[in-house]
Amino acid sequence: MRHLLSTRSLDRDAAVRLLDIAEDMADTQTREVRKLPTLRGKTVVNLFFEDSTRTRMSFEAAAKRLSADVINFSAKGSSVSKGESLKDTAQTLQAIGADAVVIRHSASGAPQTLADSGWIQAGVLNAGDGTHEHPTQALLDAFTMRRRRHGAASRGRDLDGFRVTIVGDVLHSRVARSNVWLLSTLGAEVTLVGPPTLMPLGTAAWPATIGYDLDAAVDAGPDALMMLRIQAERMNDAYFPNAREYSRLWGLDDRRLSRLPGRSIVMHPGPMNRGLEISARAADDPRSSVLEQVANGVSVRMAALYLLLSGAGEDPTS
Amino acid sequence: MRHLLSTRSLDRDAAVRLLDIAEDMADTQTREVRKLPTLRGKTVVNLFFEDSTRTRMSFEAAAKRLSADVINFSAKGSSVSKGESLKDTAQTLQAIGADAVVIRHSASGAPQTLADSGWIQAGVLNAGDGTHEHPTQALLDAFTMRRRRHGAASRGRDLDGFRVTIVGDVLHSRVARSNVWLLSTLGAEVTLVGPPTLMPLGTAAWPATIGYDLDAAVDAGPDALMMLRIQAERMNDAYFPNAREYSRLWGLDDRRLSRLPGRSIVMHPGPMNRGLEISARAADDPRSSVLEQVANGVSVRMAALYLLLSGAGEDPTS
Amino acid sequence: MRHLLSTRSLDRDAAVRLLDIAEDMADTQTREVRKLPTLRGKTVVNLFFEDSTRTRMSFEAAAKRLSADVINFSAKGSSVSKGESLKDTAQTLQAIGADAVVIRHSASGAPQTLADSGWIQAGVLNAGDGTHEHPTQALLDAFTMRRRRHGAASRGRDLDGFRVTIVGDVLHSRVARSNVWLLSTLGAEVTLVGPPTLMPLGTAAWPATIGYDLDAAVDAGPDALMMLRIQAERMNDAYFPNAREYSRLWGLDDRRLSRLPGRSIVMHPGPMNRGLEISARAADDPRSSVLEQVANGVSVRMAALYLLLSGAGEDPTS
Repeated sequence: MRHLLSTRSLDRDAAVRLLDIAEDMADTQTREVRKLPTLRGKTVVNLFFEDSTRTRMSFEAAAKRLSADVINFSAKGSSVSKGESLKDTAQTLQAIGADAVVIRHSASGAPQTLADSGWIQAGVLNAGDGTHEHPTQALLDAFTMRRRRHGAASRGRDLDGFRVTIVGDVLHSRVARSNVWLLSTLGAEVTLVGPPTLMPLGTAAWPATIGYDLDAAVDAGPDALMMLRIQAERMNDAYFPNAREYSRLWGLDDRRLSRLPGRSIVMHPGPMNRGLEISARAADDPRSSVLEQVANGVSVRMAALYLLLSGAGEDPTS
Repeated sequence: MRHLLSTRSLDRDAAVRLLDIAEDMADTQTREVRKLPTLRGKTVVNLFFEDSTRTRMSFEAAAKRLSADVINFSAKGSSVSKGESLKDTAQTLQAIGADAVVIRHSASGAPQTLADSGWIQAGVLNAGDGTHEHPTQALLDAFTMRRRRHGAASRGRDLDGFRVTIVGDVLHSRVARSNVWLLSTLGAEVTLVGPPTLMPLGTAAWPATIGYDLDAAVDAGPDALMMLRIQAERMNDAYFPNAREYSRLWGLDDRRLSRLPGRSIVMHPGPMNRGLEISARAADDPRSSVLEQVANGVSVRMAALYLLLSGAGEDPTS
Repeated sequence: MRHLLSTRSLDRDAAVRLLDIAEDMADTQTREVRKLPTLRGKTVVNLFFEDSTRTRMSFEAAAKRLSADVINFSAKGSSVSKGESLKDTAQTLQAIGADAVVIRHSASGAPQTLADSGWIQAGVLNAGDGTHEHPTQALLDAFTMRRRRHGAASRGRDLDGFRVTIVGDVLHSRVARSNVWLLSTLGAEVTLVGPPTLMPLGTAAWPATIGYDLDAAVDAGPDALMMLRIQAERMNDAYFPNAREYSRLWGLDDRRLSRLPGRSIVMHPGPMNRGLEISARAADDPRSSVLEQVANGVSVRMAALYLLLSGAGEDPTS
């Protein structure tokens, strides 16, 4: 794997292989000494044009567990924000010796541009680009679902027939997009539910069913119910219902939680707005996998860094 | 030791043990290679809700000398500042794999909340919370006093009968509070001196004598005279004298310095406002331990991280 | 070498030795594992009073390749910006255990002050001070020129007779100053070209020829043509031509590029303002060494850190 830019371009075998390596990585994290020498001498640059403390920390932890050196580059206040081109920034990172560039950017397609350009040989990991994709988030979500479903027998498995409902502001959500592509590739059945004004045009071409009734979706008993984060800065938009209305119509409140089957997984990419898109009780319910998702994020990112940076054929965890 | 939240809850034996381990750590820092493998594979997160470059750097240096991985998390501009609960932040750090969380917070009690909550298994180190406590500062102060008093024979000793005078804005000072508790536990006699408006109510219950006359306190010849830092942002408060008046009444100026005995230690937690609470001459006097305090801070924080993160019974410095 | 403060104070032998060690360092960067154990246990503090993501990252990468621990200290928002003296900051870093302090400061002479003061034993590396010097930039420029000229036979060589033309805002450029001193020490012939209003007084005493005609300078066929970066914030100054006028008179545009000999090197310290002081075509031309300069910067900084921090007589790359 040269880059990890989107889940849309991942085929089933590549996705399952990455999830399997993430299982290996997760196993190492239960050892007394969790650090692996795998990427010793490699340099990972976190190139963040948008703040995202969680994602940056997860990649940083993943890279350090693999013994890579990590250099954080927040583009705010740097020459980048003074108009330096992405090309010059990228080539500079390459020249400094970056082996992988983890990029978070407000522009959809920026990581793809970086990877296609020939500007750099470094592996490019998309850590979220505009409203386009956030592939490691989808991979950690799929990893979490697979583990909840198959437990110790997860390796090699996909999510055939697994029914996943994704709820909220699909229009602006790169998490939703990355999940739709990955989950359908893995055989899951995806339903998207949200306000009509927050559902993108063009979903007819997506491998997903669209719905507008959260109660009906809950009563259908999905295997996983994924609540998307509401961006506070969007709540003043004309097409956005007010918070109270949103919560009443599209939030996972205690009443809906009580009607959800015991085997359903409640998911959220975090950080949660408790009381808005998800109630405190739902967040802390045994069905909630919110913290597993975070923990699995480190394993999945270790796997991605390994695949991009390590020679093929080596044992990823030795 | 599971957490280090306050000095009030430390008994004499635990405090002396920590100081003794800090002595071991200090010894290793004179070696050619100062780095110890002790915490290899452990992850320390510096979770700073308030800026404090010095304290953050001291903890970062301490953790790195012990071969831990360090992830810095400045809460400014993060989802934390957008209203994420401390609970969700803490659980996220736990899920990412933090073994210790070093927390600086403007709210008194935040580290205690974190530790008591059951939200995390990681060790919690209080790096300063509101006007409550700053335990590693008090420990490094006590370490400095013990070394000045007992030199190479410090191990196992306390500060029985050591007379310490703490001067300044006690009302807002977590440094003063942590020192009062720790020093009295170690057998020292503590006097607090400052403007009546900057002396907290309730000091009657503290194991300390209260005074309002710095000249008398200097003439009493304390073993240590600790000048507290004046926060510039407080100087416009109604209960705060102006800077010139403060300096005249409560500053360690050259005249007072000259009347201080040769064996007295002049202490300051830094950063100093030279010319305000302490004169340049006092800061640079041979009696001043300001830089020893900083250096000892690294040793004390290495000891604290070791105690929280290492298995018992191991040699801390091998 | 105790400190690296300026190129003016470097003699030929010291400069060539540093460049030769940088060659050794560059060789190690082509290995499978680029990390060297040379500075294991040493602590490098990046003390940046001005933002400079590129220079900070280059020093950070250099230090980490040598296995040093790196602590970043951005002075913005810290007690430093609240009026703490450079002395107290420096002594604090020393007490925390800094073995080297990489300092970027807006005041010319700040690194020299630090080194001369006796405040610290740590080695001081000037990473740019006011309009004074930026010695590692000049060293990486000289390294780049030497490699382009002598290739694999670079070791031990200087730049005798090499003709270098530096173009732009010489008045405000520490890069220009450091290059003038170093290049002349290495035997190169330096010409400075720029608007009369942006040429400093006192250049008569510099080992350089002054010119005001870029076309003539291009037609003279220099071995290296170094375009200085224009600071956007200066463009409103009274003595500064507007951007279009600047570009027309002092920019390396395509027309001038086409008249430059094939053996000429086009240099720029970055980040480039494409279309202002340098055209996109010139930046990407095969004669351009912009990315080599960045890559060489890591090697040169590894050499500087090695010289300041390692015991003499050791092999720098084992």
